[in-house]
Amino acid sequence: MAKRVGIVGFRGYSGEELVRILARHSGVEVYLMDHRSDASAKPLPIGAKTPTRIAATAEAAKQAGIDCVFLATPADVSMELAAQFIAAGSKVVDLSGAFRLGTVENFKHWYKEEHTQPALLAEAVYGLPELSRDKIAGARLIANPGCYPTCASLAIMPLVRSGIADLSAGIVCDAKSGVSGAGRKPSLKTAFCEVTENFSAYSLLDHRHVPEVLMNTGLEVGQFSFTAQLIPIHRGILETIYFRAPKLGSAAELIEIYSTYYGNEPFVRLYQPPAVPDIAGIAHTNFCDIGVVFDASTKRGVVVTAEDNLIKGAAGQAVQNMNLMLGFAETEGLL
Amino acid sequence: MAKRVGIVGFRGYSGEELVRILARHSGVEVYLMDHRSDASAKPLPIGAKTPTRIAATAEAAKQAGIDCVFLATPADVSMELAAQFIAAGSKVVDLSGAFRLGTVENFKHWYKEEHTQPALLAEAVYGLPELSRDKIAGARLIANPGCYPTCASLAIMPLVRSGIADLSAGIVCDAKSGVSGAGRKPSLKTAFCEVTENFSAYSLLDHRHVPEVLMNTGLEVGQFSFTAQLIPIHRGILETIYFRAPKLGSAAELIEIYSTYYGNEPFVRLYQPPAVPDIAGIAHTNFCDIGVVFDASTKRGVVVTAEDNLIKGAAGQAVQNMNLMLGFAETEGLL
Amino acid sequence: MAKRVGIVGFRGYSGEELVRILARHSGVEVYLMDHRSDASAKPLPIGAKTPTRIAATAEAAKQAGIDCVFLATPADVSMELAAQFIAAGSKVVDLSGAFRLGTVENFKHWYKEEHTQPALLAEAVYGLPELSRDKIAGARLIANPGCYPTCASLAIMPLVRSGIADLSAGIVCDAKSGVSGAGRKPSLKTAFCEVTENFSAYSLLDHRHVPEVLMNTGLEVGQFSFTAQLIPIHRGILETIYFRAPKLGSAAELIEIYSTYYGNEPFVRLYQPPAVPDIAGIAHTNFCDIGVVFDASTKRGVVVTAEDNLIKGAAGQAVQNMNLMLGFAETEGLL
Amino acid sequence: MAKRVGIVGFRGYSGEELVRILARHSGVEVYLMDHRSDASAKPLPIGAKTPTRIAATAEAAKQAGIDCVFLATPADVSMELAAQFIAAGSKVVDLSGAFRLGTVENFKHWYKEEHTQPALLAEAVYGLPELSRDKIAGARLIANPGCYPTCASLAIMPLVRSGIADLSAGIVCDAKSGVSGAGRKPSLKTAFCEVTENFSAYSLLDHRHVPEVLMNTGLEVGQFSFTAQLIPIHRGILETIYFRAPKLGSAAELIEIYSTYYGNEPFVRLYQPPAVPDIAGIAHTNFCDIGVVFDASTKRGVVVTAEDNLIKGAAGQAVQNMNLMLGFAETEGLL
Repeated sequence: MAKRVGIVGFRGYSGEELVRILARHSGVEVYLMDHRSDASAKPLPIGAKTPTRIAATAEAAKQAGIDCVFLATPADVSMELAAQFIAAGSKVVDLSGAFRLGTVENFKHWYKEEHTQPALLAEAVYGLPELSRDKIAGARLIANPGCYPTCASLAIMPLVRSGIADLSAGIVCDAKSGVSGAGRKPSLKTAFCEVTENFSAYSLLDHRHVPEVLMNTGLEVGQFSFTAQLIPIHRGILETIYFRAPKLGSAAELIEIYSTYYGNEPFVRLYQPPAVPDIAGIAHTNFCDIGVVFDASTKRGVVVTAEDNLIKGAAGQAVQNMNLMLGFAETEGLL
Repeated sequence: MAKRVGIVGFRGYSGEELVRILARHSGVEVYLMDHRSDASAKPLPIGAKTPTRIAATAEAAKQAGIDCVFLATPADVSMELAAQFIAAGSKVVDLSGAFRLGTVENFKHWYKEEHTQPALLAEAVYGLPELSRDKIAGARLIANPGCYPTCASLAIMPLVRSGIADLSAGIVCDAKSGVSGAGRKPSLKTAFCEVTENFSAYSLLDHRHVPEVLMNTGLEVGQFSFTAQLIPIHRGILETIYFRAPKLGSAAELIEIYSTYYGNEPFVRLYQPPAVPDIAGIAHTNFCDIGVVFDASTKRGVVVTAEDNLIKGAAGQAVQNMNLMLGFAETEGLL
Repeated sequence: MAKRVGIVGFRGYSGEELVRILARHSGVEVYLMDHRSDASAKPLPIGAKTPTRIAATAEAAKQAGIDCVFLATPADVSMELAAQFIAAGSKVVDLSGAFRLGTVENFKHWYKEEHTQPALLAEAVYGLPELSRDKIAGARLIANPGCYPTCASLAIMPLVRSGIADLSAGIVCDAKSGVSGAGRKPSLKTAFCEVTENFSAYSLLDHRHVPEVLMNTGLEVGQFSFTAQLIPIHRGILETIYFRAPKLGSAAELIEIYSTYYGNEPFVRLYQPPAVPDIAGIAHTNFCDIGVVFDASTKRGVVVTAEDNLIKGAAGQAVQNMNLMLGFAETEGLL
Repeated sequence: MAKRVGIVGFRGYSGEELVRILARHSGVEVYLMDHRSDASAKPLPIGAKTPTRIAATAEAAKQAGIDCVFLATPADVSMELAAQFIAAGSKVVDLSGAFRLGTVENFKHWYKEEHTQPALLAEAVYGLPELSRDKIAGARLIANPGCYPTCASLAIMPLVRSGIADLSAGIVCDAKSGVSGAGRKPSLKTAFCEVTENFSAYSLLDHRHVPEVLMNTGLEVGQFSFTAQLIPIHRGILETIYFRAPKLGSAAELIEIYSTYYGNEPFVRLYQPPAVPDIAGIAHTNFCDIGVVFDASTKRGVVVTAEDNLIKGAAGQAVQNMNLMLGFAETEGLL
């Protein structure tokens, strides 16, 4: 029997993507959950079939028998709603930063507000399947990873765990994202005329996705320099990661190391050096692509990683987590 | 001695363009006039020289001895400020639609609000130099034309005045504009992710720029079909205009007719058929470009016209009008 | 048992799209058919599964038991290969213009070359399912419609057949397309820097897609003005169609007429006036969307239609035709 | 009396920009020098005034009395023509890489061909005015710097010369460029559909602009990691540069250091931390903008620099060099 899943924030960019992905999922029935802050609707063709609409409340979720709710909402809304839906017996996948950072201090430092659900924060499981598949399967509340940290963590983790990178030299992650990462709410920064024919850096050394990467990789703050930048495209992230590896012999050797970590992963793809991924290759997919280049004479290396910020960086990964939680095949709806 | 000119709305896209053009003008000293509704500022380089700032008030204008004020403001702000600055002795070039439509009834019909300055509306001169250069020179208040009507009127007027077009068959103007035409205020319609990789039509048959074209060309409403559309580019308008001309022999003959109207115009450029202009050719210039194509066997023709909506369609034409009003060479600052 | 289908030109934009669509099709096994003029390949992830490769020859097709070949090739290549594959017993869906225009004279006039396969040209069925579904089902050779004519014909046909449009006043179709319509072969006209921040018209009144629209709608050449224009986007066509309808009462009445033609069509979607479609709504789908606006007082109307030029305008429609020819559900692989 | 200057390659993107800039220059008369490999022309308006055309030969240059020739040509063409024009008595500003790298070995290593003019290579002066203004003034042959190295060198030089950066930790330069940097010759890599909605890295750790940065800054190859990347925009470069500075106290202190180098430079602009430049701020200007961010607790810093690759990165800097060589004010035509 089909599981019932609800989406709050179904008109935002991640929410729209959830609707699209779940429509292809063979095992779920989708409910759109109306919330007071929903963005404006687009006109639909005559006779368009749309999922059932219910209110974004615990009562409505209970009545409809919702097994899992996706929160594609800001952190403050997610804190409020996650508690209600979990109390009502639904599992929750939260796409905001509300439950990612482990402690209330950490949350307050990076999100500049008080955490109102410390118990849930402590309980939440960080939902990067490649790092913690088993814990996800048993969770009630998933903190779906940030878009930048998803591919940054997947690309950097093997460098650290294998011991191949010289951490004292530091790791630099120069990250670039399409504009949909900033959400659908209009702002001057994401206005067409401000973005087109432009390219700009923001949150230099101070982006709130940094602590997620540190948590996932074990790097210390002084070992990791991160810059976020805006590409004039709709969707996609590419990160260029610089490291030093005094004992590494070649790029081929390095991609071998990566394949020991990701050889069996359905959503991580590796490239034969010197090929590296680009954004066109991952747009509209749940893949995180990784390629490496290495200069053996000077021991300097570069990892290039790319993902679709709305899919592997948000809605796709959320469905991947849901699949694990509800007992579906992990790739259902995602290939 | 230099004339003193003020700009209200200097942070909007047309206002920014005015600042840029007037910085190259040899005969004016520029004042930026602060208004309560100004958009947010961008960071400037250390030591950047910027024009003097004064308040957007009649008193400040009087004290600074402002000869001419540019209003790059919404229609309701323009109605209020134009009256004050004229009372204070300044000439005014208004870039909004407040003073373009001749009568209070016309204004109310298309702008859905009451006109608060009927006397000024009656006095205002419509500032399309190619059509009414002499009246502009003597005016106190210029209604700077809309972006779409500027090139539409210049492209259609010869078809009508020469009698070459069959008006009973109607004239179709399919207009496309870059996004800056919608101004700098953030909105969902002009958000990057809504516009990029998209193309959409709006205000079909009902755009408020239509009455300006009718006024300028003598066409009746039933003879003129106009659609506005959004191109995913920053700046530039291209209009494709369809007509029938039962007695015309060739495109070459038609471009001859255009040259009798525009041969001496500094800012209208014609193309040898079958070449037609594109947006790249006019971006960042004050030119309105025109080209024509004609099928002699079926008597159907097409005019293609292009202009930069922020320059010939706004700020450039405003300076052209100011040049005429203040006695400068018409092309000063604009070539 | 799965049908075997081959793709020649699988690295062009339409060919890539065929590969993508057919990978989702439950009833076919795909073969990539290498041709001497194939474009350069992109690097693939390590271990990527790709379809079997065979030569683009009749022998190879025979040996592999190919049921249907898609030709995503230029017209001259298609003429040569269609004959060979049909002789070898495969059905053929040709995406070029080689077999669309009915007569060798017509082909020579618009494509400026001799037709080398007059018998096949006479036999070929024009593959617009909404107009000739039954003939398609029984065909050996399908001339897949041009991208512009697909939505133009679907949008205009009801205006003509219902008798609602005044044909003596003519119908204007102002068409705009994304750049992929020009194919993957590099040229100055489709170079990024020539296209971005630009918008340009080409083939005014003289595009070789015009005769397809005339054939499909019954319009005469003097009744139909068509202009093609390049939008700085990857994919998507929007056409703005102007007509006069002296006896029509309202847009609602007109959309009713459209629904009598398309109410049961799986890939034509209508909008409730005054909503009209845009390109974002159809990108990456096989839908042709249609909306209408009408000014009852002057009897002028506008139809806006949009489709993805690579899908409903090429690869998607080709698969729709194959589904009909091979006996699959018409929508298989396309929803 | 006006100096006479010629442009070879006037239809390429840098060449077009030279024509545009020199049209605003008060002291020169421009000659377009036809070369056999010129790209195709765009249609011009009727009556458009264009510079005199002469052949790109020594004889034609001599006869016309050309004082200075700009070579906006590939390296192999530049090697051939530079020798001829210098023999004919003209000064030369070469925009290719032909004369930048000092030695024939260096040239062969990075450009994969033999240098045919070793004497001229030895004589050529590298034309980065901020580093070697005096030598430029007395030169016959200027090697105009590459686009990436111009802003990279200006941004990194103070870090090295001041001793503030820990060179043993290395400096990372993550560079991004608009597509015009690849020139006007059509290729698949710069085709619109390959670039739009994409972002890709190329020449990782191995770009031939690297040796220029090393020469200008004194860094060794193992100390400098450089990646070039393609932004889907027409023009502009932004580079994000990562360094460690164990003894630095703050970003404010660092910008002070920069101002000791560039306080009097007309074309280098600094930003007050934490503001950093973006591409929109320098497009269509000859400025190189620089901003810095620093984390005092971990001693990690970032420099962001931006320039227009066609102006400060090519044609503008070429004119700046010509101004120095011919005795004009350095900023003539460039503000």
